[in-house]
Amino acid sequence: MNAFELYNPTKLVFGANMVERLGELVEPYGKRILLVYGGGSIKKSGLFDDVMFQLGRIGAVVHELPGVEPNPRLSTVNKGIEICRAENIEFVLAVGGGSVLDAAKAVAAGALYDGDVWDFTIRKAVIQEALPIGTVLTLAATGSEMNGNSVITNWETKQKRGLGSKHIYPRFSILDPKLTYTVPANQTVNGIVDIMSHVFEQYFTLTTDIPLQERFAESVLLTVIENGEKAIKDGTDYDARANLLLAGTYALNGTLPNGVTTDWATHGIEHEVSAIYDIPHGAGLAIIFPNWMKYVYQERVGKFVQYAVRVWGIDPAGKTDEEIALAGIEATRAYFTRIGAPATLGELEIGDEHLERMADEATQFGPIGSFKQLTKDDVLQILRNSL
Amino acid sequence: MNAFELYNPTKLVFGANMVERLGELVEPYGKRILLVYGGGSIKKSGLFDDVMFQLGRIGAVVHELPGVEPNPRLSTVNKGIEICRAENIEFVLAVGGGSVLDAAKAVAAGALYDGDVWDFTIRKAVIQEALPIGTVLTLAATGSEMNGNSVITNWETKQKRGLGSKHIYPRFSILDPKLTYTVPANQTVNGIVDIMSHVFEQYFTLTTDIPLQERFAESVLLTVIENGEKAIKDGTDYDARANLLLAGTYALNGTLPNGVTTDWATHGIEHEVSAIYDIPHGAGLAIIFPNWMKYVYQERVGKFVQYAVRVWGIDPAGKTDEEIALAGIEATRAYFTRIGAPATLGELEIGDEHLERMADEATQFGPIGSFKQLTKDDVLQILRNSL
Repeated sequence: MNAFELYNPTKLVFGANMVERLGELVEPYGKRILLVYGGGSIKKSGLFDDVMFQLGRIGAVVHELPGVEPNPRLSTVNKGIEICRAENIEFVLAVGGGSVLDAAKAVAAGALYDGDVWDFTIRKAVIQEALPIGTVLTLAATGSEMNGNSVITNWETKQKRGLGSKHIYPRFSILDPKLTYTVPANQTVNGIVDIMSHVFEQYFTLTTDIPLQERFAESVLLTVIENGEKAIKDGTDYDARANLLLAGTYALNGTLPNGVTTDWATHGIEHEVSAIYDIPHGAGLAIIFPNWMKYVYQERVGKFVQYAVRVWGIDPAGKTDEEIALAGIEATRAYFTRIGAPATLGELEIGDEHLERMADEATQFGPIGSFKQLTKDDVLQILRNSL
Repeated sequence: MNAFELYNPTKLVFGANMVERLGELVEPYGKRILLVYGGGSIKKSGLFDDVMFQLGRIGAVVHELPGVEPNPRLSTVNKGIEICRAENIEFVLAVGGGSVLDAAKAVAAGALYDGDVWDFTIRKAVIQEALPIGTVLTLAATGSEMNGNSVITNWETKQKRGLGSKHIYPRFSILDPKLTYTVPANQTVNGIVDIMSHVFEQYFTLTTDIPLQERFAESVLLTVIENGEKAIKDGTDYDARANLLLAGTYALNGTLPNGVTTDWATHGIEHEVSAIYDIPHGAGLAIIFPNWMKYVYQERVGKFVQYAVRVWGIDPAGKTDEEIALAGIEATRAYFTRIGAPATLGELEIGDEHLERMADEATQFGPIGSFKQLTKDDVLQILRNSL
């Protein structure tokens, strides 16, 4: 186990109808609110009205940043920053899924920075402060509700990059499983793949002697696998939605990487695909992750054997380690296919035109990943195997 | 799953030699420090000198509260409160195991309260504020390093009671597995039992549809079972000590009870035993917990079946649920015995003289527990079965 620091001050408020507590949770931070949301589904569902009602009860002055895209754009973030400055915003409230939350975090950091918020993604500047943020989550996937990370896309340059800081942890996040009832099946599927991929990035590591972290990771995977299918079958299954939502939070709230050298290469590769093609993050991961697994498993076959046995219940009797490991990878692909996720870039009508550029961008600062360090050629090969 | 709130702002700093970071961690809170510690083992080990050196580097003024007892006493806590008031203490630093941390928390809360700190334990008053606290942990067991709870004993009235508040979460806790190398085997054993018991109190619940919380709990148990024996065999096995330490923290840092109705009856019963006999908490729990299990398992046999199969690897083939459940309970007892924990009160020379009083005290506010609500007669029976 490596040395590590664990710090996560987000208050999670979990349960049916918890939006009722919104006013009480926002009030300590001020009354001038920027409300960040997406394409309008929260208006259809009635959540927008509920949020406005609760904010009205504390006499809040609400400005709006609507229309945050699935891969949230720098231009939208900049719009939010302008509003914050012009209206002396005191608190940023994100209501939506991961992209809305990520956009709100970038807005909150950019509003107090005397420069271009993109600087944070290219490490030209470090976040020193941010407006306080709160979230009402409507989709199990991102983990953004309980961490200090954000991913935004510069649509002009087709670059998708991350920023992170302890200053952009949400002060609170409201998680009501009922708010995810209306998530369409395909988005539920993308969320499931996203959550599982977050776990993979922290589970497939060369770090040894981390039994608790491994079992925690397997716990999240098993919970998602079991409850994901239930939630797809019946979107209003409260327990399935609740278990999926909680698993999504724990996949990325700092519980799994304690003392572990994590990887994140596959996320890096996927970001290059969705920066160019604007596909859902979960769909890209469903295509690439099993191909990453096949490309790297020989670096530490034992870990993939453990994964196959503990997560997928592969019976090791009469099989070589190699066969067990491959069976686990096949089970992953089969599960993704069973729930309706894509298996090839071709299914999304993506050809080989930009693979070279994606591989270039993904490795622009050098090889990526830690389970196996991937050069540009490695990335290109994984992308070709994903066609 | 029930509704819940999760909030844990303690910063965990985990790894070898992390005491080097003490000055930097303390400095934001002030320089007038109360250093709380136990019977002097930190002087023998050299940790005391290391701590004083680090505090010296930031020019801290250090006052001392030494001699905190294994079941920390109200009288000692009151001594600490007096020092805080007389010396305008700004920060309370606990260096030791659970009892030292618990005493420090009570001191920190009491110092800013204009009344008797015992009021907090009998719910005559609620903690409104506390001096900031930091800890350097020397024993895997308590969980106190990352939660807002404390247990102290009024030796005059022979009462052991808890207090809790968000205000007494440590601001930071330093966990260096090497600091636990010198913990004697019997204390390592008590710590193992303590950690496992914390999990039991949150795992054996009537709440259903909590797969993630159940698997997390099983993860902690499996980690403790595997690494506990290694740590007893070789006290300087870094990975065993590290895994045990991290498991101890996760057993009681708010990860396991999310949305779960917890029990805590066995802790209540044990507190009454150790309030009178001043035995180690872990020893009392090793005796009582398997007897509690046998007394209550029929309330929900399925949960005990799951426990037996997943944690102890009991083969269910050809057995009734009842037999599987009992085999899991027997495996628990056998493990405690294998690592050298006591199985009966008699082994600690405790007879039946005060059982009636213990049962009375344990149930003074009504029946205790939730898996099965225990009346005075139930508690008395469990204690008799423990003789």
